Amino acid sequence: MSRSMITLTTDFGGGSPYVAQIKGVILSIQPQAVLIDMTHAVSPQNVRQATLVLEDVTPRFPEGSIHVAVVDPGVGTDRRLLAAEIGGRYYIAPDNGLLGRLVGSVPAARVVALTQRGYWLPVVSATFHGRDIMAPVAAHLSLGAALEDFGEPCDRLTQLAWPQVEVEKNRLQGEILAIDSFGNLITNISQDLLAAGAADSAAVQCGGRTISGLADTYGRHTPGTLIALVGSSNRLEIAVVNGSAAVELRAEVGDAVSVTLTP
Amino acid sequence: MSRSMITLTTDFGGGSPYVAQIKGVILSIQPQAVLIDMTHAVSPQNVRQATLVLEDVTPRFPEGSIHVAVVDPGVGTDRRLLAAEIGGRYYIAPDNGLLGRLVGSVPAARVVALTQRGYWLPVVSATFHGRDIMAPVAAHLSLGAALEDFGEPCDRLTQLAWPQVEVEKNRLQGEILAIDSFGNLITNISQDLLAAGAADSAAVQCGGRTISGLADTYGRHTPGTLIALVGSSNRLEIAVVNGSAAVELRAEVGDAVSVTLTP
Amino acid sequence: MSRSMITLTTDFGGGSPYVAQIKGVILSIQPQAVLIDMTHAVSPQNVRQATLVLEDVTPRFPEGSIHVAVVDPGVGTDRRLLAAEIGGRYYIAPDNGLLGRLVGSVPAARVVALTQRGYWLPVVSATFHGRDIMAPVAAHLSLGAALEDFGEPCDRLTQLAWPQVEVEKNRLQGEILAIDSFGNLITNISQDLLAAGAADSAAVQCGGRTISGLADTYGRHTPGTLIALVGSSNRLEIAVVNGSAAVELRAEVGDAVSVTLTP
Repeated sequence: MSRSMITLTTDFGGGSPYVAQIKGVILSIQPQAVLIDMTHAVSPQNVRQATLVLEDVTPRFPEGSIHVAVVDPGVGTDRRLLAAEIGGRYYIAPDNGLLGRLVGSVPAARVVALTQRGYWLPVVSATFHGRDIMAPVAAHLSLGAALEDFGEPCDRLTQLAWPQVEVEKNRLQGEILAIDSFGNLITNISQDLLAAGAADSAAVQCGGRTISGLADTYGRHTPGTLIALVGSSNRLEIAVVNGSAAVELRAEVGDAVSVTLTP
Repeated sequence: MSRSMITLTTDFGGGSPYVAQIKGVILSIQPQAVLIDMTHAVSPQNVRQATLVLEDVTPRFPEGSIHVAVVDPGVGTDRRLLAAEIGGRYYIAPDNGLLGRLVGSVPAARVVALTQRGYWLPVVSATFHGRDIMAPVAAHLSLGAALEDFGEPCDRLTQLAWPQVEVEKNRLQGEILAIDSFGNLITNISQDLLAAGAADSAAVQCGGRTISGLADTYGRHTPGTLIALVGSSNRLEIAVVNGSAAVELRAEVGDAVSVTLTP
Repeated sequence: MSRSMITLTTDFGGGSPYVAQIKGVILSIQPQAVLIDMTHAVSPQNVRQATLVLEDVTPRFPEGSIHVAVVDPGVGTDRRLLAAEIGGRYYIAPDNGLLGRLVGSVPAARVVALTQRGYWLPVVSATFHGRDIMAPVAAHLSLGAALEDFGEPCDRLTQLAWPQVEVEKNRLQGEILAIDSFGNLITNISQDLLAAGAADSAAVQCGGRTISGLADTYGRHTPGTLIALVGSSNRLEIAVVNGSAAVELRAEVGDAVSVTLTP
C-alpha cells in the first residue's frame, strides 16, 4: 500500500499554473508525495471524459494510490466534495458524476463527503476548491488520515448520463466516447458485446463508411487503410493506419457507430 | 526546509526536449532532486507572464524549495544570471525583470549574480544557459551550497514595466494581465482595491460590455452568463460561465478593464 | 548508477491517458521509480524525431538511467522489441530504427530482443506494447534484472534512413532536421563540418534567403533579424531573434539548407 502516489486529473490545460498551485499545496503538507500528472487535457467541464480516464487508468496504479480529479464547474455552489476508497485505491473529486460509475461498480466502496474544515487550507476561495480543499485532503490522506476523518459517509452519488449500447439481435448501436491524439475513435462498444459474433463477420458503420471485419492491430494493414479493432482498453475503435480516423471521417464524440454481427 | 524540490518555469513549450535536457543535468548532479514542472507554456520571451506564475504559485511551495525560471531572450549577452533567497524560497533566473518585483516585495531578500564557474557545466553554450548554468547551480543549491558560493551579492535588479491600476475617486482603470486556459480574463485589479466599494455596486467594463455586480463563483449563474468575480489569486476576473470570456469579448492581454464602485 | 530514473518518450501527445497507463504499470511493479516525461510531443509515427530526442537528451542523464521510447507504428506485428545498454544507459524501444544510430555509435553496446514473457504483463494487447511489454520490462530492469534476463542478444538492428550532409569543396548541402517550439530551424549540419571555414565567412542559404556569417547568440541582434548560429546541440540553426524562422521562411522539416564556407 503506497499512499504516497497522488495523481492529478484536471481540465486546466497542459502547463496551467493552477496545476502547479495544487502541487505546491500538496507538497507543503506532505513533502514525500510522489505527484503524477494523469492528464490536464480534459476539455473544460467535460466530466464524462475525466470519468473515462479514471476508469481506464487508475486500475493500472498500485493499491493505496490516491487519485484527485478536479473537473468542477460547480465549484463554490452546494455540490458536495467526496473522498472515496474504491477497490483499494483512493479518489477525491466533486460529486458531479465523476465517481458515480466507479463507486457503482464496486459494492464495497466507501465514500465520505468532505466537511471537516480542519483538513482544508485556512482560507478557502470560492473558485478553486481543487487547491483549497481537495489538495490538502489528498495530502492528509497520504500522511495516513482515515477516510472517515474527512467527513460523514454518504451515498446516492450523482450519476452521469452515460451512453448505453443498444443491442438488437445481430446489431449493436453505440457511439464515439472519445477521440485520442492519433485520431482513433474510441466507442462505447465493449469487447464483451462483440464476442457474440465472429470477428471476421463484423461490419462496422460510422460516418457513412462500412468496415468489414475486425483487424488485430494497426501495423498489419497498408498506411491509410480504415480499420476497426478492439483497442487496448477493450473497446471497439475505428482507426486509420498511420493516419487520423477523426479527420478522415470528420468524426466527433457522440457520433453513431453500429456493428452488425453474424453469430 | 526541503531543498530537494526544484520547479521549472520556461517558455520552451510543453514537451520540449530542452526541458528534458535541464532535468537530465540536474539529476546527474543531484539524483535525489524532486523535479516539478511549474509551466512550460509561457509564451516565447514573455517575461511578464513568467513573473506572474512565480508570484502566484511559488508561495504555495514549502520553504527551501528552489524555483528555476528560464525565459531568457538575452542568453549569451552580458545580462546577469541571478540566484536569490526570497521569503525562504530560492530562485534562479536571468536578471531581465523576472525577479525584480519578487525581490522588491521582501526587504530581507538576498541576491547574488552567478559568476563562480566551478558550479557550471564544464562547457557552456552561448544559447542555453538554462541547461549549462542555471540547472547545475540549482542542483548544487539543492545539495546544500550557500547562495554566496555562487557569486557576489548584487542589487539594483532589472525592473519590469508593470501595468499600474489608475485609481480615481470611484473608478479603477486597469487591464487584462493574463488569460487562462478557460478563457477567463485575469486583471491587474486586486481585491484590496475593490474592497473600497460594495460588491453588488460594482460595474465592470471590458470590451464594450458592462457587468453589474460581482459574482461569488461560476456555478451560481446560468451557463453562458458573463460575470465578474474575484478569482483564486485575489484578482478581479471576467468569465463566461462554462464558456470563454476571451472568445466572447475577443479579449487580449493588455485590453482595458474599468470598475466603477459606489462606496 | 541510478536505475530508478525512467524517462518516457512517446508520440502520444501531451496529456495522453496512454502515458498515464504506462506510468501506472511501472509504478505498480517498482514503486520507487522516478518517472520523467522526456517528451510526448513527437509527431505521430515520427521515428526520426524521437531518435533525435534520444540522441540529444539521454547523454545528459546519469549512467544507469532507463529510457523508454514508444513510437511504435508496427505494434502487434512481428517487429522486435529491444532492450539495450548503450554507454552506461539503458534503452527500451521497438526495433524500427529508434536505436539503430545510437547502438551503431557505441561499439560496446549490448542489445537483446524481448522474448521472456515472464517480465511482461499477464495479458498483452495487440495495440499497446508500450504498456504491456515495455513498461514492465523497464520496471524490472529498474529493480535490478540483467539485460540478458529479458531475451537473447541480437544484432543487425533496423537502421533509419538519415539525411546525410553533402560536402563539396567549400559547400555543405544539408537539410532541416527539426523545428523547435520557438520556430528555430535545426539542421543536420554539425559544428564539426562548419569548423572547416571561418565563422564570419559562412553564407547560409535557406528558403530563398541568404544569411551572411554566423551569430554567437540570439540576444546580440535586433529583434526580427534572421540569423544563423551553432545551437546548443552543436548543430547549425537558423533563427529569427524573438520571432519564428519557421513562420518567416515558411520552412518545414526536410527543406534544403546550404552553407558556403571560405577556408
